[in-house]
Amino acid sequence: MSASLLIKNVRPMGAAEADILIEHGRIARIAAGIAADGVPAEEGGGRIAIPGLVEAHTHLDKSLLGMKWYRNEVGPKLVDKIENERQAKTDLGIDPALQSRRQALQSIAFGSTHIRSHVDVDTVHGLAGIEGVMHTREELADIVDIELVAFPQSGLMIRDGTLDLMRQALERGVEVVGGLDPCGIDRDPKGHLDAIFGLAEQYGVPVDIHLHEPAELGAFSMEMIFERTRALAMQGHVTVSHAFCLGMSDDAYVGRLIDELADLSIRIVTPGPASRPAPPVARLRAAGVVVGSGNDGIRDTWGPYGNGDMLERAMFVGLRNNFRRDDEMEIALDTVTASGAIVMELSDYGLSEGCGGDVVLLGGETVAEAIVTHAPRALVVKRGRVVARDGKLEGIA
Amino acid sequence: MSASLLIKNVRPMGAAEADILIEHGRIARIAAGIAADGVPAEEGGGRIAIPGLVEAHTHLDKSLLGMKWYRNEVGPKLVDKIENERQAKTDLGIDPALQSRRQALQSIAFGSTHIRSHVDVDTVHGLAGIEGVMHTREELADIVDIELVAFPQSGLMIRDGTLDLMRQALERGVEVVGGLDPCGIDRDPKGHLDAIFGLAEQYGVPVDIHLHEPAELGAFSMEMIFERTRALAMQGHVTVSHAFCLGMSDDAYVGRLIDELADLSIRIVTPGPASRPAPPVARLRAAGVVVGSGNDGIRDTWGPYGNGDMLERAMFVGLRNNFRRDDEMEIALDTVTASGAIVMELSDYGLSEGCGGDVVLLGGETVAEAIVTHAPRALVVKRGRVVARDGKLEGIA
Repeated sequence: MSASLLIKNVRPMGAAEADILIEHGRIARIAAGIAADGVPAEEGGGRIAIPGLVEAHTHLDKSLLGMKWYRNEVGPKLVDKIENERQAKTDLGIDPALQSRRQALQSIAFGSTHIRSHVDVDTVHGLAGIEGVMHTREELADIVDIELVAFPQSGLMIRDGTLDLMRQALERGVEVVGGLDPCGIDRDPKGHLDAIFGLAEQYGVPVDIHLHEPAELGAFSMEMIFERTRALAMQGHVTVSHAFCLGMSDDAYVGRLIDELADLSIRIVTPGPASRPAPPVARLRAAGVVVGSGNDGIRDTWGPYGNGDMLERAMFVGLRNNFRRDDEMEIALDTVTASGAIVMELSDYGLSEGCGGDVVLLGGETVAEAIVTHAPRALVVKRGRVVARDGKLEGIA
Repeated sequence: MSASLLIKNVRPMGAAEADILIEHGRIARIAAGIAADGVPAEEGGGRIAIPGLVEAHTHLDKSLLGMKWYRNEVGPKLVDKIENERQAKTDLGIDPALQSRRQALQSIAFGSTHIRSHVDVDTVHGLAGIEGVMHTREELADIVDIELVAFPQSGLMIRDGTLDLMRQALERGVEVVGGLDPCGIDRDPKGHLDAIFGLAEQYGVPVDIHLHEPAELGAFSMEMIFERTRALAMQGHVTVSHAFCLGMSDDAYVGRLIDELADLSIRIVTPGPASRPAPPVARLRAAGVVVGSGNDGIRDTWGPYGNGDMLERAMFVGLRNNFRRDDEMEIALDTVTASGAIVMELSDYGLSEGCGGDVVLLGGETVAEAIVTHAPRALVVKRGRVVARDGKLEGIA
């Protein structure tokens, strides 16, 4: 569904006031004093207008939002969390359709218009997560764009049958092949990466790999990702999520990795983790590497944090990167808007004529203030339709 | 001013429901089904009750809250920020009385009942900050307890006359001697530390030192603090704020520092900084070191972040320390309550009979949920008087 709407008196990206005219779901004009008879109008009141927020990395299938509080007593290792979660899905009866709907609606109220969701695929739960999120995607197709990544959370090479499930997920319309710590979890980096890049080649889809491996180990895996990206000419279609290794102390080595990321147009996605080494966002951007962001898991068996707000996430990215200046805060906003859109390979994203009619109005005198206060969004518009107002969904059951 | 109040049906620290009776500003009883004729009552609705939040490290004198947005274009070094701020105070006309009042009121609405504020003392602005915050302290004495630290933000040894101003501040009733990076800023660790510990000895007051110095340099300064703490028998009366050096990579050295901190009852205060090495909160606590927290500067010339919410701060402490389990989240809450009270040497703090009647009601099923959502506080009570409700001040002009 697409609609027409005139949004009056807003400041696009904090610039001078203008009106934004959306016709049939696309931005038709941005100028001062637009007259558009018969088109419904919203008064922007001088608020900052940005395009829709882009949630470029989350896990819609397994949030516990709206469920009884989950008391977390999980062990410290990554594999503890993976095994605990696989079991908890059964024990708690986590319903991927219901939970993905809950999280997606909350994200929409916070102004996200595009969501890339990694969705677990494993030999215990099969494609239940994929089916659930696909159900939500169809149901909410008018008000948010959801993209799925088939994510082998429990490992690919170490669990026979997972690769076949990944293939089935792609056959059913999942858009992206996921991967996970080829050394740390699968203990077979060549096997893992050949498998997922093989799927990418076969189905002509992008790759988005969770890479938590630290320092030199993560750098080794990243170099194997470089080799395959080059061999398959997948420049612009590979994303490394988390990429903790880019926060390692060997500065010269980090520099070489960054140069190659730029050369191969490999994207980085980071939530700005406070407790882990993290990709240096400003340095990556200065070298030409696109850096998007995402909330990652929201209130799940991994941890209690998160609410789906990508504007608050921009604050976390800013805090993690010691951004203080206003120009730095604009970089933080970029990670949750335009750069996230590049990660998702969106062709019609942005606040200019011809782009999709996705607009969010923010409180605050400046972009920096909008980020640090992350007040409820005054208005969220998806393809010309108002979907949320003052932080609350509008017209959605 | 103190009052009586019956707070019915709350869960103290998340435990079983009980009523809390405050008589003449002190907690008289905590039990189920208390009858107290003639005492005003509030219905707690099963909410979690905690004692007042403790803001153990902030800078009330120089927030820009409520002022026009300050466009931050400051350089990257600590000294850039110090010099920029000293000039901006004049250029922007930052009024310490007005600004401290604004920040304190916002903190109260978020449930802080005790605030330790470092207040700049320097040869350009003299005691203007001290006088302004003292004005606010008197004005708000009924609804919040504010403690002042005389803080030589621009350096002590490098600016003649500062030590005399520090002495004057203490003469006027400032309760704590502050210090700052004895190597990094003053370039004279012996001179700086002898001076501030000398003041502490002379006036019989505690010490709270900002120590941003990294790694081995900070450890060196910390050891000089140990020596003076021991020599003056100031165990229990010395706090090191920030203490980035405790996040350094030399694990064994950190262990030795921690042992000595515990031995000397030196307190640590950390805001849980996402972009800097930070004190390992759980490890410090396990060794017996008290760790409090604070918001540090809020929306000032140093950076745009912060709002005064110590419950949100507990989330930042949790995020920085990779706290995920519910028992870990309780540690995070402790840093902004009981441990902060030890830092401030409060004698009657807590949620038990005989303690001051400071109570805050939180939304959420569990302590962990209360922290991660940090919803507006349902009720804030100071010495038996309701001072805020549903996130808004009550009865305060």
